[in-house]
Amino acid sequence: MYHHVKKLMYTVNIGEPDPRFGLGRMLLEQFGGANGELAAAMQYSIQGFNCEDAARKDLLMDIGTEELSHLEVVGALIRMHLKPMKNDREAAEADPLVAIAGGGGVSLFDSMGNAWTADYLKVTGDLAVDLRSNIAAEARAKIVYERLIAFTQDQGSKEALQFLMTREITHMRAFTAALDSMDKPQFSVGIIKPTPTLVDQFFNASTGESQYGEGDFVGPWNHSNGLIQVESEIKGGQGLDVTPYAPQPGTEVTSPIDSTPVGKYTNGVGKKQAAIHAKAQKRAEKEAAVEV
Amino acid sequence: MYHHVKKLMYTVNIGEPDPRFGLGRMLLEQFGGANGELAAAMQYSIQGFNCEDAARKDLLMDIGTEELSHLEVVGALIRMHLKPMKNDREAAEADPLVAIAGGGGVSLFDSMGNAWTADYLKVTGDLAVDLRSNIAAEARAKIVYERLIAFTQDQGSKEALQFLMTREITHMRAFTAALDSMDKPQFSVGIIKPTPTLVDQFFNASTGESQYGEGDFVGPWNHSNGLIQVESEIKGGQGLDVTPYAPQPGTEVTSPIDSTPVGKYTNGVGKKQAAIHAKAQKRAEKEAAVEV
Amino acid sequence: MYHHVKKLMYTVNIGEPDPRFGLGRMLLEQFGGANGELAAAMQYSIQGFNCEDAARKDLLMDIGTEELSHLEVVGALIRMHLKPMKNDREAAEADPLVAIAGGGGVSLFDSMGNAWTADYLKVTGDLAVDLRSNIAAEARAKIVYERLIAFTQDQGSKEALQFLMTREITHMRAFTAALDSMDKPQFSVGIIKPTPTLVDQFFNASTGESQYGEGDFVGPWNHSNGLIQVESEIKGGQGLDVTPYAPQPGTEVTSPIDSTPVGKYTNGVGKKQAAIHAKAQKRAEKEAAVEV
Amino acid sequence: MYHHVKKLMYTVNIGEPDPRFGLGRMLLEQFGGANGELAAAMQYSIQGFNCEDAARKDLLMDIGTEELSHLEVVGALIRMHLKPMKNDREAAEADPLVAIAGGGGVSLFDSMGNAWTADYLKVTGDLAVDLRSNIAAEARAKIVYERLIAFTQDQGSKEALQFLMTREITHMRAFTAALDSMDKPQFSVGIIKPTPTLVDQFFNASTGESQYGEGDFVGPWNHSNGLIQVESEIKGGQGLDVTPYAPQPGTEVTSPIDSTPVGKYTNGVGKKQAAIHAKAQKRAEKEAAVEV
Amino acid sequence: MYHHVKKLMYTVNIGEPDPRFGLGRMLLEQFGGANGELAAAMQYSIQGFNCEDAARKDLLMDIGTEELSHLEVVGALIRMHLKPMKNDREAAEADPLVAIAGGGGVSLFDSMGNAWTADYLKVTGDLAVDLRSNIAAEARAKIVYERLIAFTQDQGSKEALQFLMTREITHMRAFTAALDSMDKPQFSVGIIKPTPTLVDQFFNASTGESQYGEGDFVGPWNHSNGLIQVESEIKGGQGLDVTPYAPQPGTEVTSPIDSTPVGKYTNGVGKKQAAIHAKAQKRAEKEAAVEV
Amino acid sequence: MYHHVKKLMYTVNIGEPDPRFGLGRMLLEQFGGANGELAAAMQYSIQGFNCEDAARKDLLMDIGTEELSHLEVVGALIRMHLKPMKNDREAAEADPLVAIAGGGGVSLFDSMGNAWTADYLKVTGDLAVDLRSNIAAEARAKIVYERLIAFTQDQGSKEALQFLMTREITHMRAFTAALDSMDKPQFSVGIIKPTPTLVDQFFNASTGESQYGEGDFVGPWNHSNGLIQVESEIKGGQGLDVTPYAPQPGTEVTSPIDSTPVGKYTNGVGKKQAAIHAKAQKRAEKEAAVEV
Repeated sequence: MYHHVKKLMYTVNIGEPDPRFGLGRMLLEQFGGANGELAAAMQYSIQGFNCEDAARKDLLMDIGTEELSHLEVVGALIRMHLKPMKNDREAAEADPLVAIAGGGGVSLFDSMGNAWTADYLKVTGDLAVDLRSNIAAEARAKIVYERLIAFTQDQGSKEALQFLMTREITHMRAFTAALDSMDKPQFSVGIIKPTPTLVDQFFNASTGESQYGEGDFVGPWNHSNGLIQVESEIKGGQGLDVTPYAPQPGTEVTSPIDSTPVGKYTNGVGKKQAAIHAKAQKRAEKEAAVEV
Repeated sequence: MYHHVKKLMYTVNIGEPDPRFGLGRMLLEQFGGANGELAAAMQYSIQGFNCEDAARKDLLMDIGTEELSHLEVVGALIRMHLKPMKNDREAAEADPLVAIAGGGGVSLFDSMGNAWTADYLKVTGDLAVDLRSNIAAEARAKIVYERLIAFTQDQGSKEALQFLMTREITHMRAFTAALDSMDKPQFSVGIIKPTPTLVDQFFNASTGESQYGEGDFVGPWNHSNGLIQVESEIKGGQGLDVTPYAPQPGTEVTSPIDSTPVGKYTNGVGKKQAAIHAKAQKRAEKEAAVEV
Repeated sequence: MYHHVKKLMYTVNIGEPDPRFGLGRMLLEQFGGANGELAAAMQYSIQGFNCEDAARKDLLMDIGTEELSHLEVVGALIRMHLKPMKNDREAAEADPLVAIAGGGGVSLFDSMGNAWTADYLKVTGDLAVDLRSNIAAEARAKIVYERLIAFTQDQGSKEALQFLMTREITHMRAFTAALDSMDKPQFSVGIIKPTPTLVDQFFNASTGESQYGEGDFVGPWNHSNGLIQVESEIKGGQGLDVTPYAPQPGTEVTSPIDSTPVGKYTNGVGKKQAAIHAKAQKRAEKEAAVEV
Repeated sequence: MYHHVKKLMYTVNIGEPDPRFGLGRMLLEQFGGANGELAAAMQYSIQGFNCEDAARKDLLMDIGTEELSHLEVVGALIRMHLKPMKNDREAAEADPLVAIAGGGGVSLFDSMGNAWTADYLKVTGDLAVDLRSNIAAEARAKIVYERLIAFTQDQGSKEALQFLMTREITHMRAFTAALDSMDKPQFSVGIIKPTPTLVDQFFNASTGESQYGEGDFVGPWNHSNGLIQVESEIKGGQGLDVTPYAPQPGTEVTSPIDSTPVGKYTNGVGKKQAAIHAKAQKRAEKEAAVEV
Repeated sequence: MYHHVKKLMYTVNIGEPDPRFGLGRMLLEQFGGANGELAAAMQYSIQGFNCEDAARKDLLMDIGTEELSHLEVVGALIRMHLKPMKNDREAAEADPLVAIAGGGGVSLFDSMGNAWTADYLKVTGDLAVDLRSNIAAEARAKIVYERLIAFTQDQGSKEALQFLMTREITHMRAFTAALDSMDKPQFSVGIIKPTPTLVDQFFNASTGESQYGEGDFVGPWNHSNGLIQVESEIKGGQGLDVTPYAPQPGTEVTSPIDSTPVGKYTNGVGKKQAAIHAKAQKRAEKEAAVEV
Repeated sequence: MYHHVKKLMYTVNIGEPDPRFGLGRMLLEQFGGANGELAAAMQYSIQGFNCEDAARKDLLMDIGTEELSHLEVVGALIRMHLKPMKNDREAAEADPLVAIAGGGGVSLFDSMGNAWTADYLKVTGDLAVDLRSNIAAEARAKIVYERLIAFTQDQGSKEALQFLMTREITHMRAFTAALDSMDKPQFSVGIIKPTPTLVDQFFNASTGESQYGEGDFVGPWNHSNGLIQVESEIKGGQGLDVTPYAPQPGTEVTSPIDSTPVGKYTNGVGKKQAAIHAKAQKRAEKEAAVEV
């Protein structure tokens, strides 16, 4: 259940409204944009609705709810900047959708007037995967706030954006801690191990040199984390090892907190193992989290 | 410039086609779906087009191009499963869009018939942020392939999916190595440090206990990575520290490989620093990468 | 600022899960569908963010927030029904998007897998118009819940749906009271009167008789509320009165609570009238609403 | 069957074309926008295709067809304003989609270049609900025309917009008359009564006072139309009455003109009642409407 | 101006309704689908609104209007097939969007429930180009109707589909005649000639042999219409001739009926030529077309 | 399998970047727009994936792959023009989506910021129909490039656009040759002949004279290609011949290269004919194409 407290989470004050192509419109990016506050709020809350681990579900609901409060703060900031749009033709030209159809108010659009869509969200129902998506999402939101700060001179707006930007780093830290607490090896996802040999082969699919001097480089991404580079057959190389290999469910290292794998029991990973997993999950939940 | 080699990257063979609501349709998820092969190919290639670091641009083009080859493999796999759809009314009922409008062929739709959209992509133009998005994207693709494996019994299909699934882990390792090679502290994004104190406050925005026994937990995500938990004012807590704080561009730890920050020079981070950054970037590129 | 209380607004219990094409999937219509709970929550909350009348803003925030709590209830109901989808191939076939990409969890899609979009929302920034949109939205949500009830036999589900359905009528009553409290004549919108004579002419643009006996009828909609029917020139009638007529801003009956008209003061309705309006608005707000 | 008469419904004449960010672009809002003429034409016509009451179907086809004629008028008005866009670079910058891809002609986009989508439509197949949606749609279209008038100084354009604006009020009156003619009590929707007691409870989900002095008000919307205000448990109140209550199909007051309820006869409302309803419907149709 | 005649253009009668995944749902493809009747109606009508040649504008309005009448016929056919969906749970499962949200009526969705979007339309404002788009659109619609015929056994439905299918060929003939009447050489588009030599080079970008025996073929498309095949540099060929070449506006063969080229007069093709073109256009219009 | 060669297909060089509303933004139309290079690349490649005729599949893959190389060239051109957007507020205002969310890089959006969608593609799985769609697509792309040339003064950009524009004509010639090589009569589509008499009737659905002198014309499109004009009943004409007519599968003239018709064998066109068709197809393939 949600409750709305009329006090804004951050007290927004601005100096001079800046409607024409300006901060007001750019800010819409963080209201109804792909990496904006509604996207964050919905991604985490819906992951939370789906989460079977009560402890990390609490985390997802904490942050999902805070992002809703941010949406409200961004909305207040935009409205202050949009004010002149109501009566000023020149300001209205900058964004007719807001000025004409929206009466100068905010709505769930990004800076180019695209309606918000759930296609922005990354929700897989696998907790460890979702946490990775969230860490990346927070990094994206951070960089967008930073760019918004770079394009305004208004002190009050800068400070409000700094507040919101800071919270993304807080959340990034929290999601990272939650992922770490699952004790999964860095490249473990799900329950099926990747094919040996093939998984170590970095495939060099782009070669040569461009007109601008960009060449075919070798870096740590070609030869660390167990990788070795393989050349393409078109360049005289051996190509990837494509020997067929049957999937082995149950071979990947899983965490007791992992969601029960989808379709698992139709794939030879039996009921007994499921029971063990469930038990371990209960225990891990107890240990990792202390109820307040 | 691209070149197409008619040989498929993996030789797809299936036993029995499974069109009705089956693998064919489910597989569309990895063809034209949100975490499918076209999404991967486009996300990495376009990040590559934008990348100012030639060494890591090569990485992005390598993997972006390989994903195009995967798109072709998934397409071949789907076509084999869709075959009966062309002439069998019952099979056609499973997906009229494919059967009637598409003549039983593949098209850029997901498993529910939604047209592929660039809204699925995460491209920010900040290399370190984009690499995080890619790591998460690979994890999502891996788990989706695993679920597809769980829902088919056809050996050839299982093996083809295992091949594709394995490559996601390879790419995850490579993107992680590339991010690590940038030597950025774990929670550093961009050029502006978050607000002290505030950044350490984990806000407990979801409290109480549900009808299903889910409570208000404390876990590492509330008190590690420098975090401390703060209670909401509505629950008698102190709330977040909302003292206004002015952004300080240039205070965050950056990597020489970082993209030049957007709008930076309008924000008091001067030309001299930009020149130093550019020089360091050139040097780092030389060291980290050896041209083949 | 929002706060999340872990207790669901309504205690959901179901008998037998019904995943295959069943209630689970149908229910998505009220989760991420065009007339679903997120659409309601967002429409009212964003109207609330924009509302300049503090009293009716409170109303919009009350109901907008309650709809978020409903979203959570619908989510819980769906999850209970979707459970078998995780491991049962036949159930998974019913909705591969949920089963494969979503791991059997809810996401912001409608019953056919379309991603939620802000295109569903009706937000104009004119309070009286927005209230009309809300009354219609509640009626639509009511009828959809009723149809969902009609297609399930599970008692717990029926009761949960009855709870949610009832709230729509409550909200319909509240929005109607808010519109009535603005004391606007029934067909007054904005500040410009429609053209006399022309406004009374109902145009008979569809004539003749169909193969199924549907004819050209006359009903109250052709001759009440001041209307008279006008025949088309193609049928030998006089057609509409199309004499040009200049708009007269300030002639329509407005309410003191009306939003300041967009662009008004650039159109000859002067500053003095704006000041009078603002004063009346303050007074009306005081009278109509008593702070708790 | 449709017939096109080359004469425009209204003779559009403009003084000075105003392409750059101007009226031309803003006007697209009423051509291919969410509340524009195509949206109106399609919403009413498709409701008309679905309508089982021949008399009100005639109304829906009359107005749906007239809106198509309006689409043509708006198109003519836009084309006159867009003319300079064809050859003038500065004008073309204002809307590259129209200038470059569209050759300076109109297309089904809104003022921000978003393609028209059927997501804008509200079609439920329940006549009384659809009429409410139409009343709200006409109010929205009226206010948008008024805003367009406010942002142009061209007399011919103002008059054309006044014509179109006026028709929305005409239609609003007609839809209202049609709804009234169904003799349904104001808050009756469908066939199932809402839960007693619960339906009277207005839930105060937003409380406190904002930094801008917005408080927790009480207005008629909290205590008229049978409503009483209930406080949330988080604020020490009693919360809503959530006693489970089984739906009672057939208890709500219906109109003889009501569409046959969806799924009704699977829910205990028997065939006999259906026959009575059908008879009443025939009689009502006869009385309310006189064939021309 | 449009007028609606209640008589359907074709008298639709069906034997047995076929709702479950059947013809009703498949048919939606031609109602609200990408190549359906609304798409056709809108594409031609909007091209007509934009057309500066009155004679061919008449053609576009004739066919655009007829397609609206087809939309109505398809709507009637669908409604007959959807009837059981209203009350039958099993039928409703086939398409919950139609059954639950739409009350069993038609709406502007395709066979997979995707909302119709103007992204389907091809409108460039260049008459000869638009006619080519229309010829292709009619071919697509023809093949879709043919497939629908193939999947039903109901005689009345087959005949209705045959009627609609036939009209697509009629329109294809008419659009082809209109294109031919413009007397443009087959590969002339616009006003700028392509670069000599380069335009003749067919680039062999796909080579080798696939696992399924598909090889690198040579056909008429590589060596007729003036083409010669050029091999890629990656395969040891010479690659395309990429010598820079400046555009020469005014060198391509144009028709007097061609739309005035966009931006032409900013590119050195002077006012005098424009006047000659305008004159020729008037004369051509007179000759080619005789007013009724 | 795809391989990426770092050398761009065309060496892009520009003089002065032109970010503000300028070429950079307009150019996005050909990157992520409806008729842009990704749309072309995907349309042809996916038709290629589906093509059962190996010879013409090679054609589709050749051109589909070349369009990917064009996408890269357009991307390089845009990036050069966008450069100032990174640090210049005024430039950033022109397209906040690119500047703020994209960090000044390219992404898959059109000139108005709409995300690329597969709804742009025309893929039916019928080779002759797909070739017609491709011919039209090339014509559209040609005209858009021409308009871009008309709106820039930068020599390097003009030449790059001329290169890309030229290739569209090359492809148009190749697709036309491929269609011609199928030896299908001009108005033959699929396997079912249209209804005699009816197919010859051009229906005059738009009549009268507009306020701007546009009348009801007769042109070759009304009386050539076997057509005769029929007047509407509303204008006193006879209307179309709507006598029901049963579809006759197998009566239309087909090509040995035609795709096997969808659903054909459920409609009385037997297995024997299918075998003959398959044989003819093999032979035609051999004759028309010589493997390199």
